[in-house]
Amino acid sequence: METKIKSIESYSGDNICLVRITDGDGAQGWGMTAPFAANISALVLHQIAAGTAFASHNSPDVNDFTDVADEVIRRNYKYLGTFLARAAAGIDTALWDLEAKKKGVSAAVLAGKKSGRDYIDLYASSMKRDLPVREEADRLREIQDKFGYRAIKLHPGIPVGRDRDFWDGRTEDMVRAMIETARPGTEIYVDVNGNYSVEKAIETARFLHDCGVKFFEEPCPYWKTEETKAVRDACEKIGIPVAGGEQDYIDTVWENMIERRVMDICQPDLLYLGGFSRSLRVAKLAASKNLPVTPHTSNRSPIFIMGLHYMAHIDNPYPFLECGIEEDLWATECYTPQIIIKDGRAAVPDGPGWGFEPDEDFLAKAHYQISRND
Amino acid sequence: METKIKSIESYSGDNICLVRITDGDGAQGWGMTAPFAANISALVLHQIAAGTAFASHNSPDVNDFTDVADEVIRRNYKYLGTFLARAAAGIDTALWDLEAKKKGVSAAVLAGKKSGRDYIDLYASSMKRDLPVREEADRLREIQDKFGYRAIKLHPGIPVGRDRDFWDGRTEDMVRAMIETARPGTEIYVDVNGNYSVEKAIETARFLHDCGVKFFEEPCPYWKTEETKAVRDACEKIGIPVAGGEQDYIDTVWENMIERRVMDICQPDLLYLGGFSRSLRVAKLAASKNLPVTPHTSNRSPIFIMGLHYMAHIDNPYPFLECGIEEDLWATECYTPQIIIKDGRAAVPDGPGWGFEPDEDFLAKAHYQISRND
Repeated sequence: METKIKSIESYSGDNICLVRITDGDGAQGWGMTAPFAANISALVLHQIAAGTAFASHNSPDVNDFTDVADEVIRRNYKYLGTFLARAAAGIDTALWDLEAKKKGVSAAVLAGKKSGRDYIDLYASSMKRDLPVREEADRLREIQDKFGYRAIKLHPGIPVGRDRDFWDGRTEDMVRAMIETARPGTEIYVDVNGNYSVEKAIETARFLHDCGVKFFEEPCPYWKTEETKAVRDACEKIGIPVAGGEQDYIDTVWENMIERRVMDICQPDLLYLGGFSRSLRVAKLAASKNLPVTPHTSNRSPIFIMGLHYMAHIDNPYPFLECGIEEDLWATECYTPQIIIKDGRAAVPDGPGWGFEPDEDFLAKAHYQISRND
Repeated sequence: METKIKSIESYSGDNICLVRITDGDGAQGWGMTAPFAANISALVLHQIAAGTAFASHNSPDVNDFTDVADEVIRRNYKYLGTFLARAAAGIDTALWDLEAKKKGVSAAVLAGKKSGRDYIDLYASSMKRDLPVREEADRLREIQDKFGYRAIKLHPGIPVGRDRDFWDGRTEDMVRAMIETARPGTEIYVDVNGNYSVEKAIETARFLHDCGVKFFEEPCPYWKTEETKAVRDACEKIGIPVAGGEQDYIDTVWENMIERRVMDICQPDLLYLGGFSRSLRVAKLAASKNLPVTPHTSNRSPIFIMGLHYMAHIDNPYPFLECGIEEDLWATECYTPQIIIKDGRAAVPDGPGWGFEPDEDFLAKAHYQISRND
């Protein structure tokens, strides 16, 4: 590999950890680890991942910078898990920014912009799970009118909740109310975050299909691949696609899920999965099986920007990308400029790199760490 | 669940993190997270796992203390990975010690001692991968004579090393030299830590079989389940059993591996897997498919003691348990008393609990943290 990484710096807040890489030429790039528990990702980044990223420069197993995250994960096989992948994502996304900036292009252009799209259509993704049904439906309609979204995703039910709801019938009432309240023709998606048993998922799938819901996301606990597969097979007959994959960070698990069609729509999280490079590979694999891809980007941290580049690049984008609608300062205060949403879509930043810069106040307040390749 | 956990304390050194739990009656128990990167496991323990362990007391999903680790992992599904399992193991193993001490019995007796064995036969496990062949063979024979081991495991090749060896032919020379040098009748095992491609693994399996090696451990990178499965199927025809599983911490992955017979001998690591309770479930599942189990206990930290209890309890123990032979202070300095090895075997500690106490010097020097359930 050509790029010699000279240093890896991190700036951690409560939820966000921004990462800066400097190479041997003094070129720099910004990336981030996956959101939440940022301090743990930062610790894993410096204590475990950084050394192997430095060493990858001289490794015969690394062809270019897009292999570094894989090598970091492989060499640290005793530490496999979400935190290692989150840390690797920080390195990988900073390298994408650095390499794209060196060439003066956007990340999407560096990747090769196959979809040819300059604008990405977005679906409004609600993160409120337990609001009164009327309040949530009205809130979402208001947001729809303001930003022009043509698709909306609900998150009803309790995550991995063993078939339980916040109160009896809320999920069904919420779906019906949303359909009545949204603009006519709005696509409605439902994500239950692994709430259901196979039986309850199939029963719910019938209801959702009858309501005209366009996809059913994460019906069963995601690590129970066989349960999700059973539900998907039933849903094919019912006539509603199953979406999923946001939590999965093991490439062989992705290969298995795509090969066996555990889901119809693939939703890798670019950062949980270990970065842009690894996520591009999943998209390529999904495309080979004609499965559409729309990444998990449920908040407006820089992951959302990376999602725009990703959707601009890949062969097989789903028509809409997830756009978190909550006004979460934790996600937006760390960078500028914010992405403008109009007519239910956003422009793919021109770059160079990702097209964002860290916020100076965020950096000043963040916990700073550096690993040097001496 | 009856036990209300009042506090979780941790004492971390570089590699070892001992965990103490105190319950509502003031009863206490000691356990440990998995070895290595102990500070990260301790951080995950307090920041992520402790709160869910406290909450499990009132959860309808927890029947008794043996369900707590599962609940910790399930509720923190966004943080799935080795560090979460390592932290959960600290809680689970401390609860086993606490509950067994409350009843005045050993952990093995509390579990129900099915094998009826008071002594566990051990295999000597070398951790030196790159010593000159002659030196390593002589060293192991000396250790064999001193402690009476009737089985020896070699670790040749580079871990996840893409078919590479430390130098050409070392693995083959090492196996031949060991067989010539060991006492006649010694069982020899070979663990390559995921070094091989399918092709190279099958070629090596033929060689190992011809040499009389009794099992071939982790031929391929462990996360590549399909590759290991292909090698195992070939090895069945060749006539050498495949062992594996030490790194796997996802219960559905274990279910899949056992169901599909990805390996012939199951080697869960009691701590990487998330504790004694979760490991007992894997043993039960393996027994239902007539697969023998021998846990991964390659060092003499308290995991080795837990391994003795485990082998005394389970239905389907392999004839020998792994016993690390390196004199690693990091593993042994944290507790007393040390296990005595004679005639190639060790007594299962009588308890109460695990039958070890933390070393006062270790505790005094360790980094201390506490989570309180107020």
